[in-house]
Amino acid sequence: MSSKKKLQFYLDRMERELDRAMDFWITHSPDMSFGGFFNCVGRDGKVYDTDKYGWLQARQVWMYCKLYNETEKYHKDNVLQDAISGGEFIMKHLKRSEDGRCYFQVTREGKPVKIQRKLFTECFYAMAMAELGRATGNLKYTVEGESMLSRLIHWARVDDSDLGLTKLAGDKPVNSMAVPMMMLCVIDNVCAGNQALRSDYAVHEDWATQQILQHVQRDGKAILENVSPDGTQLPGYQGRLMNPGHAIEAGWFLLQRAIKTADKTLSKTAIQRFIVDPFDQGWDKDFGGIFYFLDVDGLSPVPLEWNMKLWWVHSEALIALLMAYQETGKASLLDMFDQVFEYSFGKFSDPEFGEWWGYLDRQGDPTHSFKGGPYKGCFHLPRCLHMCIKMLKSLLKNNGPRQSPVIKIKVI
Amino acid sequence: MSSKKKLQFYLDRMERELDRAMDFWITHSPDMSFGGFFNCVGRDGKVYDTDKYGWLQARQVWMYCKLYNETEKYHKDNVLQDAISGGEFIMKHLKRSEDGRCYFQVTREGKPVKIQRKLFTECFYAMAMAELGRATGNLKYTVEGESMLSRLIHWARVDDSDLGLTKLAGDKPVNSMAVPMMMLCVIDNVCAGNQALRSDYAVHEDWATQQILQHVQRDGKAILENVSPDGTQLPGYQGRLMNPGHAIEAGWFLLQRAIKTADKTLSKTAIQRFIVDPFDQGWDKDFGGIFYFLDVDGLSPVPLEWNMKLWWVHSEALIALLMAYQETGKASLLDMFDQVFEYSFGKFSDPEFGEWWGYLDRQGDPTHSFKGGPYKGCFHLPRCLHMCIKMLKSLLKNNGPRQSPVIKIKVI
Repeated sequence: MSSKKKLQFYLDRMERELDRAMDFWITHSPDMSFGGFFNCVGRDGKVYDTDKYGWLQARQVWMYCKLYNETEKYHKDNVLQDAISGGEFIMKHLKRSEDGRCYFQVTREGKPVKIQRKLFTECFYAMAMAELGRATGNLKYTVEGESMLSRLIHWARVDDSDLGLTKLAGDKPVNSMAVPMMMLCVIDNVCAGNQALRSDYAVHEDWATQQILQHVQRDGKAILENVSPDGTQLPGYQGRLMNPGHAIEAGWFLLQRAIKTADKTLSKTAIQRFIVDPFDQGWDKDFGGIFYFLDVDGLSPVPLEWNMKLWWVHSEALIALLMAYQETGKASLLDMFDQVFEYSFGKFSDPEFGEWWGYLDRQGDPTHSFKGGPYKGCFHLPRCLHMCIKMLKSLLKNNGPRQSPVIKIKVI
Repeated sequence: MSSKKKLQFYLDRMERELDRAMDFWITHSPDMSFGGFFNCVGRDGKVYDTDKYGWLQARQVWMYCKLYNETEKYHKDNVLQDAISGGEFIMKHLKRSEDGRCYFQVTREGKPVKIQRKLFTECFYAMAMAELGRATGNLKYTVEGESMLSRLIHWARVDDSDLGLTKLAGDKPVNSMAVPMMMLCVIDNVCAGNQALRSDYAVHEDWATQQILQHVQRDGKAILENVSPDGTQLPGYQGRLMNPGHAIEAGWFLLQRAIKTADKTLSKTAIQRFIVDPFDQGWDKDFGGIFYFLDVDGLSPVPLEWNMKLWWVHSEALIALLMAYQETGKASLLDMFDQVFEYSFGKFSDPEFGEWWGYLDRQGDPTHSFKGGPYKGCFHLPRCLHMCIKMLKSLLKNNGPRQSPVIKIKVI
């Protein structure tokens, strides 16, 4: 197959898959009685638990708005109305008025069930509000997104006492990669299209980028999930933990930033250190797919689910590898994309119902039949497909990578 | 093989396995510099993380003392000295002086890292102190165990505000089976040999027993892990969750109590509802072994690790099935014991190094190479082997079950 035919093949398959996924969510997920979305949805769309999860409510609002804002096919009133229903639900029920913190879990009606001592629900809330503001033109959402972003910077950089963390004498301070990754992602989303705001947050984007880069360890050969605040390896198994999917996701966050700031060094690091190396280390040579966790010294990773294959890991790898190919034109990157594409569409895609299986065992067989659960919603797969479709269209239109290889990097 | 020969075969194998396991811990686990025990120990005994876990520190003290107190082979000075070292470490570093709460995790030196909003570390602390008091004859440990028991009753039944739980409007109150199970176990251990104390706590033993029995649901056909405080099924997937190993463990806790109180109804319920039915429902008909989690309606259990086979589940099943056989003399119970014995010694036992693998995939292959980790220590396997050895010796001595079948129950 010629390169162009191949890209067209990916595009066709991904467009169909996005429609199948979105049909699934649009049909089965909205809660017509209380607003917002059902998250725990079985293979065939049947709701098996009515509690609502903060990360997933906000991500679904964001996803609907993103598609509404950027595609003709989903620029539809029903999509916007469902997004508004979700947006109103999270403004009313997710956010705690006294301090702006957001609940991790609420009942179907919106009564709070759980709050985390982490700031991730708030991150997704800010992204949802910003995108909903752009979709509706209603400033109240935009203001809400910007004001949450400002709170997030305060919690992440100035004072995290609102998070209610217990600080114990032996608890070593940690730079956990998820925090700067999310901050970089949220700033980028909330500031999209607002150059003045972006300038205000530039210093925080630089900070988040540097914090992510601290995770490059072992002479550049490994991305470690948890490091000390000054960027050294932590003792014990937490310090040795690698999460290849997370590294690869950070890779495309960094690569996007490198493109925006025309930073070639950052681009090289993003592609080689965060995308190619973790892909290579994380790929299961025996059964295919990317492991969930690894230990940098080859010891047993402690999490019980370390050898499972997760849908989001493979979604992130598809985005990252295609973006890296688009930037460099290196055929080896398209080969890696092809490898993940084959595995993912072969193993995660459900021929009967839309949206991917979330969890496979090491051998690649689904271990869970549901399509939505407490940590899996309308987000990773549609985001991946939407972004890849945009890149594939651009590659086909330009008859090849955006820039012919200007950045010379060694790719294994 | 005659029944007697079979029992002798189990006994020989279990005695060898106990020695192999205890050799492993006695050789590799003590921290000679700071006291207490290393918990994160690789297959060959190499320490891969030096943090110390509260549950496991206390359980190891308890296990050493139990063997010291009840067997000739382990009534050795080095065993007692290591137990005292552990006991002193947890008194000094695990317990927080201001409120008696115990840390879940401390550094090697004993600095606090984590505290849970649950009371399990404190339960194991009380058990360790009581058993250490009996081993040493030193009243300070006995008093410490009794005073922690009194605090535990306060937290479990009167006022749990010391636990620091956030109570949110939509967070349904739960009777989680682990709490009454642990309370029954702790009361039984702390009061052992002290009839006056046992009388004081009799009302709490009754309460814990009733709380466990509330988990019998679906017309007696299922043990659900979480129910409402008044014993009805909770909505959603948490309400449908079954943990067969936990039910089976509760089964032998209840059976022990039934024997002590000569309660034949309780004995029948313990054996049929908590041991036989969960064993039958939990056994993997395709690959053998007992699943970790199930959904009572046959939906996907939500935990990622639901289909793994865990060492503690199988250790508990061995104790429960042998105890049920000893009480009833039913051959079918010995057959089930044999089935778990074959699976466990075939799959969990490591021919090269002592102590079992902790975690197998559904197919029965080890997924983790370490013998000790943050949730696996010197406890379930040695407790199982020690208790089974005692029961097997008694069966062989009495030439059959303790009582010829006086309790007529239908066993599948």
